[in-house]
Amino acid sequence: MAKQLSGAGLRGQVAGKTALSTVGQTGSGLTYRGYDIKDLANNCQFEEVAYLILKGKLPNQQELDTYKTKLHKLRGLPQELKDVLERIPKDAHPMDVLRTGCSMLGNLETETSFEQQQDATDRMLACFPSIICYWYRFSHDGVRIDVETDNDSIGSHFLQMLHGKKPSELHEQVMHVSLILYAEHEFNASTFTARVCASTLSDMHSCVTGAIGSLRGPLHGGANEAAMDMIEKFNSPEHAEEEMMGMLKRKEKIMGFGHAIYSDSDPRNEIIKQWSEKLANDVGDDVLYPVSVRCEEVMWREKKLFCNADFFHASAYNFMGIPTKLFTPIFVMSRLTGWAAHVMEQRADNRIIRPSAEYTGEDLRSVTPIAERN
Amino acid sequence: MAKQLSGAGLRGQVAGKTALSTVGQTGSGLTYRGYDIKDLANNCQFEEVAYLILKGKLPNQQELDTYKTKLHKLRGLPQELKDVLERIPKDAHPMDVLRTGCSMLGNLETETSFEQQQDATDRMLACFPSIICYWYRFSHDGVRIDVETDNDSIGSHFLQMLHGKKPSELHEQVMHVSLILYAEHEFNASTFTARVCASTLSDMHSCVTGAIGSLRGPLHGGANEAAMDMIEKFNSPEHAEEEMMGMLKRKEKIMGFGHAIYSDSDPRNEIIKQWSEKLANDVGDDVLYPVSVRCEEVMWREKKLFCNADFFHASAYNFMGIPTKLFTPIFVMSRLTGWAAHVMEQRADNRIIRPSAEYTGEDLRSVTPIAERN
Repeated sequence: MAKQLSGAGLRGQVAGKTALSTVGQTGSGLTYRGYDIKDLANNCQFEEVAYLILKGKLPNQQELDTYKTKLHKLRGLPQELKDVLERIPKDAHPMDVLRTGCSMLGNLETETSFEQQQDATDRMLACFPSIICYWYRFSHDGVRIDVETDNDSIGSHFLQMLHGKKPSELHEQVMHVSLILYAEHEFNASTFTARVCASTLSDMHSCVTGAIGSLRGPLHGGANEAAMDMIEKFNSPEHAEEEMMGMLKRKEKIMGFGHAIYSDSDPRNEIIKQWSEKLANDVGDDVLYPVSVRCEEVMWREKKLFCNADFFHASAYNFMGIPTKLFTPIFVMSRLTGWAAHVMEQRADNRIIRPSAEYTGEDLRSVTPIAERN
Repeated sequence: MAKQLSGAGLRGQVAGKTALSTVGQTGSGLTYRGYDIKDLANNCQFEEVAYLILKGKLPNQQELDTYKTKLHKLRGLPQELKDVLERIPKDAHPMDVLRTGCSMLGNLETETSFEQQQDATDRMLACFPSIICYWYRFSHDGVRIDVETDNDSIGSHFLQMLHGKKPSELHEQVMHVSLILYAEHEFNASTFTARVCASTLSDMHSCVTGAIGSLRGPLHGGANEAAMDMIEKFNSPEHAEEEMMGMLKRKEKIMGFGHAIYSDSDPRNEIIKQWSEKLANDVGDDVLYPVSVRCEEVMWREKKLFCNADFFHASAYNFMGIPTKLFTPIFVMSRLTGWAAHVMEQRADNRIIRPSAEYTGEDLRSVTPIAERN
């Protein structure tokens, strides 16, 4: 007989091995290949961290330059992919757009051998911002943007396409930090989706397409959007406190707090919170940031729930003029590195992931002729 | 600390509950909602079994008629989806086409509430054959086919679009059997992909898109295609035996045999084998079927490996004039019922599927300034 696991959702059950990250282990909340998340966010560009996650070491200056030049050259979109994006309506869910864009890319530039896995990943890293922004600007503003900008980084490339102008240094820096914070997180649901798919030896685009679909779910990737939807309704810290107390009393779900693995705090919160404060000062905000801080205080005081990575991302993205519905696609631009690295890891030591189920259904019965059925 | 599981790939580990099917349990090899697969294949149309899997009971005549009428009306494709399919090249992997078609459909007809899950599923059941055939005929024959045929069943609808003429009764019957055999199979990798995705409360199209990507993998859905590629090289049973002995000696992988769960036989093989023989007689074949039978004998004699569902599907589909590369998409047309039912089941009693990993990577280390890196 198959073994019964103690927890639903495979919680706390080891489903495989990884050398990519640790989550909530003693001494450090989150590490990528042994480096603490704070150390990386303080000292690296996102492209360095992507290189680290995908290739196993931090690049030296020459390696980083070569890698960024490679990514730079891969920003363009094939005409067929643009044609597809132009056929997706304005009111589509941007995660569905990205899922479709990634899947279509897999038709045009199929990974036909695992030797292509690094190139297929770099291509997606380079062109996912182009996919999001091409669709967004075409469907919302009616313009066909140039997706081959000369921006230095993935984050600034994204902001330039979105706003039609070069971002400030501060904004570019925040994008580096944000993309670093979201890049990898062990066996979360979207990554596990990618690994299950990879375990059939399917191609990289299938794995990433599936992962995007999982990240789309409101229990997974949509928390920063939900947090934004909430905090933008509050016009002062006092108002926020009053409304949140009401929500808690009515036992409504409040997004952006707590975590499946972390129990005391999310190490990413402290980092993005600092940057949200800097952006608030930069933009002269005296509502959204103080409101966010009050929300954090109320949730801790009332429920001992801490902000996760998503909560202060909401205000930070908002200060940079990013529409709320594009928050989760940014998550994809970043987490793609983790997904792809997990796919490579699964492929390197693979057994198809095929668990069993506990049967709770009908006993054996016979088919009744259709004329005699109720 | 997280518990260590005994088997890689979660083999033999219970990852959840299901009332949909049993695989390899005493007394019956495979049941859908308590009905033995042989009973269903002998007595039902595919649409009855789809109804059973999705709604929990076999339909009476009136329910079946209503259901088939509903599916009949949903065969058409939106122009935007046709535009997308026309932009996918001829040499694309048909599973990538279906993955993209499903994802695009999710943009045009998004499931915005779980109350729409049954309708979203029926729509996919009805139009997946249209997606496959529209793309196939456009890219291969340069024609824009009418996808709204008046055929009675999903299987005959598919064959008519593919061949441009009404299929024989025998062919329609074999399609019913084949689609029934492939409809559901507990926590296989593609279904588990769909459930992991569903556990984030994502939408039906994301779950199915992800599942298609997993079924695409050669360890999962591609076995019938691989079997066909092998047997069509053999021009007689003697030739087959000689070649297979060589392959076994060279320890080459031979697809279509054995199974992750079944240990003695696959209950679906006996059924599809009978139909393959009928088709061989119908078409006057004296090579492919005898070759297939000899392959079965050799593998049992030499390795005690039995044919799984895929092996005699290869010759059966070939006898019906189906191109090899469309074999796995037919699997999708069928397994969609199981995937969707598992998504509904996961949603009804959900906890996000988020296992843990055993860490095998670097110990904690500090970021070296980039100028000092090797």
